[in-house]
Amino acid sequence: MEKILYGLFFVLICWGSPVYGMKLTDYVNPFIGTGAVTGSLSGNNYPGATVPFGMVQLSPDTRVAPDWAQASGYDYNDNTIIGFSHTRLSGTGASDFIDILLMPTVNNRMTEAAEPKEFHNGYQSFFSHQEESARPGYYQVFLKDYKIKAELSATVHVGMHRYTYPFGQEQHVILDLDHSANKASWSRKIINAQIRLVDNYTIEGYRIITGWAKLRKIYFRMELSKPVTTCTLVDGDRRYENMPVINGTCLKAVFDFGKAGKEPLLVKVALSPVSVENARENMRKETLNKSFDDVVAEADNAWEQELGKIYVKGSRLKKEIFYTALYHTMVQPNTMSDVNGEYMAADYSVRTLKNDEKHYSTFSLWDTFRAAHPLYTLMHPRRVTDFVNSMIRQYDYYGYLPVWQLWGQDNYCMIGNHSIPVIADAVLKGIPGIDVNKAYEAVYNSSCISHPNSPFDIWEKYGYMPENLQTQSVSITLEQSYDDWCVARLARKLGKSKDYRRFERRSEFYKNLYDFETNFFRPKNNTGDWIKPFDPYKYGANGGYPFTEGNAWQYYWYVPHQIKTLIELTGGDKAFISKLDEFFTTEHISRELNDNASGFIGQYAHGNEPSHHVAYLYNYAGAPWKTQKYVACILDSLYNNTSAGYAGNDDCGEMSAWYVFSAMGFYPVNPVGGIYVIGTPGVDGSVMTLENGNKFEIKVLRKTPHDIYIQSVTLNGRKYDKTYITHEDILSGGMLEFKMGPEPSDWGKESPLEI
Amino acid sequence: MEKILYGLFFVLICWGSPVYGMKLTDYVNPFIGTGAVTGSLSGNNYPGATVPFGMVQLSPDTRVAPDWAQASGYDYNDNTIIGFSHTRLSGTGASDFIDILLMPTVNNRMTEAAEPKEFHNGYQSFFSHQEESARPGYYQVFLKDYKIKAELSATVHVGMHRYTYPFGQEQHVILDLDHSANKASWSRKIINAQIRLVDNYTIEGYRIITGWAKLRKIYFRMELSKPVTTCTLVDGDRRYENMPVINGTCLKAVFDFGKAGKEPLLVKVALSPVSVENARENMRKETLNKSFDDVVAEADNAWEQELGKIYVKGSRLKKEIFYTALYHTMVQPNTMSDVNGEYMAADYSVRTLKNDEKHYSTFSLWDTFRAAHPLYTLMHPRRVTDFVNSMIRQYDYYGYLPVWQLWGQDNYCMIGNHSIPVIADAVLKGIPGIDVNKAYEAVYNSSCISHPNSPFDIWEKYGYMPENLQTQSVSITLEQSYDDWCVARLARKLGKSKDYRRFERRSEFYKNLYDFETNFFRPKNNTGDWIKPFDPYKYGANGGYPFTEGNAWQYYWYVPHQIKTLIELTGGDKAFISKLDEFFTTEHISRELNDNASGFIGQYAHGNEPSHHVAYLYNYAGAPWKTQKYVACILDSLYNNTSAGYAGNDDCGEMSAWYVFSAMGFYPVNPVGGIYVIGTPGVDGSVMTLENGNKFEIKVLRKTPHDIYIQSVTLNGRKYDKTYITHEDILSGGMLEFKMGPEPSDWGKESPLEI
Repeated sequence: MEKILYGLFFVLICWGSPVYGMKLTDYVNPFIGTGAVTGSLSGNNYPGATVPFGMVQLSPDTRVAPDWAQASGYDYNDNTIIGFSHTRLSGTGASDFIDILLMPTVNNRMTEAAEPKEFHNGYQSFFSHQEESARPGYYQVFLKDYKIKAELSATVHVGMHRYTYPFGQEQHVILDLDHSANKASWSRKIINAQIRLVDNYTIEGYRIITGWAKLRKIYFRMELSKPVTTCTLVDGDRRYENMPVINGTCLKAVFDFGKAGKEPLLVKVALSPVSVENARENMRKETLNKSFDDVVAEADNAWEQELGKIYVKGSRLKKEIFYTALYHTMVQPNTMSDVNGEYMAADYSVRTLKNDEKHYSTFSLWDTFRAAHPLYTLMHPRRVTDFVNSMIRQYDYYGYLPVWQLWGQDNYCMIGNHSIPVIADAVLKGIPGIDVNKAYEAVYNSSCISHPNSPFDIWEKYGYMPENLQTQSVSITLEQSYDDWCVARLARKLGKSKDYRRFERRSEFYKNLYDFETNFFRPKNNTGDWIKPFDPYKYGANGGYPFTEGNAWQYYWYVPHQIKTLIELTGGDKAFISKLDEFFTTEHISRELNDNASGFIGQYAHGNEPSHHVAYLYNYAGAPWKTQKYVACILDSLYNNTSAGYAGNDDCGEMSAWYVFSAMGFYPVNPVGGIYVIGTPGVDGSVMTLENGNKFEIKVLRKTPHDIYIQSVTLNGRKYDKTYITHEDILSGGMLEFKMGPEPSDWGKESPLEI
Repeated sequence: MEKILYGLFFVLICWGSPVYGMKLTDYVNPFIGTGAVTGSLSGNNYPGATVPFGMVQLSPDTRVAPDWAQASGYDYNDNTIIGFSHTRLSGTGASDFIDILLMPTVNNRMTEAAEPKEFHNGYQSFFSHQEESARPGYYQVFLKDYKIKAELSATVHVGMHRYTYPFGQEQHVILDLDHSANKASWSRKIINAQIRLVDNYTIEGYRIITGWAKLRKIYFRMELSKPVTTCTLVDGDRRYENMPVINGTCLKAVFDFGKAGKEPLLVKVALSPVSVENARENMRKETLNKSFDDVVAEADNAWEQELGKIYVKGSRLKKEIFYTALYHTMVQPNTMSDVNGEYMAADYSVRTLKNDEKHYSTFSLWDTFRAAHPLYTLMHPRRVTDFVNSMIRQYDYYGYLPVWQLWGQDNYCMIGNHSIPVIADAVLKGIPGIDVNKAYEAVYNSSCISHPNSPFDIWEKYGYMPENLQTQSVSITLEQSYDDWCVARLARKLGKSKDYRRFERRSEFYKNLYDFETNFFRPKNNTGDWIKPFDPYKYGANGGYPFTEGNAWQYYWYVPHQIKTLIELTGGDKAFISKLDEFFTTEHISRELNDNASGFIGQYAHGNEPSHHVAYLYNYAGAPWKTQKYVACILDSLYNNTSAGYAGNDDCGEMSAWYVFSAMGFYPVNPVGGIYVIGTPGVDGSVMTLENGNKFEIKVLRKTPHDIYIQSVTLNGRKYDKTYITHEDILSGGMLEFKMGPEPSDWGKESPLEI
């Protein structure tokens, strides 16, 4: 029966048509991940409007000063909206951006207030989720206090607002350039800002701000469908009536439009990180003669096209989770160049791209090199050219590749140098449009020029990071060993044998911290002595302890390039399986638990990235059914379609990318390995349409949802016993068929992963 | 006898040759104003190298974190030098700039220190004034700790360093990008910085800093005459050996050059506010194939040419004071555009000038509109075109003209809108190259668009500033009335009669604060009531009191556009003279004396600008001999050739410009009045060579230095009884001859100043 249904499904997708008349964008639920249940960690996603990889993320802010727990500015648990601002991060722990807030009102509390102080966020409105909805590129909410329907959409550089005021009421729009992520964090400070009424239909200005990104200049142009009749400009405690321009560090404005008729007010806001002129040009190129509905339709089409690269079969619920995850992988990296090719480079000067290049940023690489970037490399290779060249541009003007880059600038958040795997993978997989020698130069120098958390002189001198010279030493030693392995692969490809040997050697430095007594990676000081006491359950945060946002248990597994060696160190397959079992079943939780450790299965913490590949490691030791067991468990129990749908921060789509891969049935344990380790499909089948035009289909034959165990596999109709597939297998197109059952089988046991 | 000597002098200057074989630059003593005697106020000047109106001011820093009392970074009373940095302000109260510090050393304390913390300013050296000298465009000092002779020179954009190390000693140069004005002031913070070794002879980088100027980007390129052998890069507590690049917020570097031979080390440092590429181009254009000595000679020639616009006769001491004052008027405004015409505009975006325009900044307008700008208008009209157009560029991108502009950005320091008199004066005097209609638009809008300290809605509603709505209300009311008079003059010239009437009316608002009971300008609140108690001796600072950096006595005189009206308000000539006498003789000093009040003669405080025109006011009431008396007294007692040579901060050359005018014998009481009020010449004659090619000579016939009183005057050989000369008189060329005597005469009594 399911075979027949599946056949129908496949026919439909082969036509390229939406299944059952629904568009894929219909399955995206932008509220997933937007709010935690009490005590859990939020995905820190947002429900607002954006286009794939756009600059503008126009979304409601429910917090006056977003910070760690509501980094995106929105918390599903809140019941008031402060306004709608144009930029934000999706799923990060730290907050930044949150620029250029607009709020429509009717009873103008701001101009009626006796003292400008009272304006401060005195304009928020209650709202209810019953009167709120969102889909890709569109968001709408009813502002209860004002009875205003607010709708949002976006192009790459332009935020679109449509405000429908109650008939006959006074129409106001508040523009707040002071609203930002919490100013108490990152020494955040508005350096200067401007609001200028160019004419009654046009506002321009900017704000310059230092925060998590050290220097952002956000220029804007705002076009209104109705003329401003009067306005109030405010700078801190000063208020000016009907002045055409204001400069200051604490700016707000109220624009009045008279009494509402039937026509809604349309506001377009174009951004540029370079100049007001560029904001004008971005506006012209992307919205000239376009209505709000035009832009909504274009955004929906853009999303449909991107989401359509993967069709999946499954329940409405599964599709909702899957397509929302897929959506979340594409709300960043963000476009950082203007339509004319100008951008602010990593040295804060303005530069111009060649030809039709685009500059991107928001590279949360410690998170995203694991699964999000491999997903881009597989599904969006054309865009990866721009991603990689954007990273190389940081090398050009900064001297080394990004560690964690936002708004084109490094903040050195987290550890490792994980643009290296991204670039190495792109080059090794032959992504076009990358200057390979330049890429190698960037990768090589970023592995040799010391920078924060990467003291390579110490690294090469000791063969590990001594904790007394470089904190987070065990985590860095493990992750840097992997990055070095990536450099070695690239050196080998380019015939640089001396470099190859050097980095091959460095890629094994992790062994120097393996303690056969405790069977853990343990910190040493620079005399070579183990640091005591050692507690494998004890958590570190981001400095001052050998482990980063995790404990020794969670970091035990981070040797993705030499898992066979890790198995040997552990004492062979049996010991390794036993250690994995202990990991997944030991409930001991340290009192010093890190904020980012969540989504537990024993010591496994799906809420943070160090654990992400671990469930797949059973395959390497001949116990694929245990991989299947835990992957199914994670897919099922640690993702759902509520606002608390993620087990931790989505981290710029990394948590989502884990789901996208794993739900299809495989995962890039070694992101640069060229293979994908088979887990257990969470959906009931999928088809990837690749940019080379080929299609790769995954058939899943299962009777009930409890059929989580692989009984047998065929690849292109032939029996397939390997527990991984290769990148080439997928690129060539074809069909992978899983026959599933409710009990473990012997499939794959005799064909352990040797790579 | 003096006639014969004077004739000889005149012949010599007519030849255009230096007097007695000395160059005018020989008279400049850059140490004047560089350090106060205990308890007095310093000129806050600096002794280092710069060229007229250049971007680079390369000078020793004797303070780790310069601030109010040593704003220029140098205090003559100090005995150690931290290093040589490339930018600074001359004579301001507040400190800023102080960028890109270099220090040569031999025993490398920085690399030898166990902990990077110990580096911090651990590299200063003792020096002595006996082993230090300076002249325009050149500075040299012997660094005792290292036995290094350090010499400095400059072009417009490039600092030149020549370090002669003791033979056989290790040569090091420290580059400190963390050194700045005091970080505890103005929320000063380094946003990011970079040091990059391009090759062994070339360093490039930048620092981005927020401080008094809200956002400065200083890109640099450094070229070395010897190769770097090894280097240490430091970021806060982190130290890296022989790395090619470092990024961070607390950067230092030590460059090593091996053992010293006989050749000194030459270091060239080019700056750009736009990009590293522009720093390279600035370097190439200004220093390619030039030796250190070439640059010294060029700088000297540039100064000789500028100083040569005014030849004065007098003692060596008088010439030293005069030419140093003249020099100090030309160390700013500072070039802010690069050689390719790019500059950072007031909206922080990069823009490009047309043709051969130059962009200038450092406009300390509350100070300099009084005498420094009138001096530029008289002596440097070509440059005034660029000054005015630079101010109008702020209007273009900021919405109103500068209040106090540094590095192209307004800081709203002080009160009033005194770019208006500067621009009005330039237009009224027919300076070419200014778009008159655009200039009027800028002036008009800057007088109508409210901004900090300029709430024009309140101004026009009440006809004065009510202290409860706008603090510093009396000072602002007086100064804004004057600015409005300037707008009215411009409106009249352009035939804008409605505007003329509006601003003519506003120019008399000062009358609304005249209290006939106390005979003072007094603060009112917005109900129109006088604010009590009122103490004319009580000082205000910069907010929270009706008077700005002064008291009611000092502000009494600020009606430069309607002094006859002020005399009438006071009760006629006799009462006015009596009030002036009281002003100059009343010793009462309030305990709340403002920091900027210094250089007292009674209540007259020459150390701050509100008093500057007051001694000239006797002329308006028929008592020119009293003007002569007090002007001679000020010239003689409040200027000298020591480090404490000024009675207060030089304030970007304003204190100096007062001296230049007054020493020649006249002063622009109303900077836009078109006339110069005659005082008493402090030098023994002068010749101005004007840009139109004409020369205006002032002959002074005096027997002894005590001949301070004018006995008679001729203009071009004809008896002259007016107590002022006109701008046209000077521009036409000619000869003004003063016959002086030891006692007051009746000259000018019957010809009071009516204008």
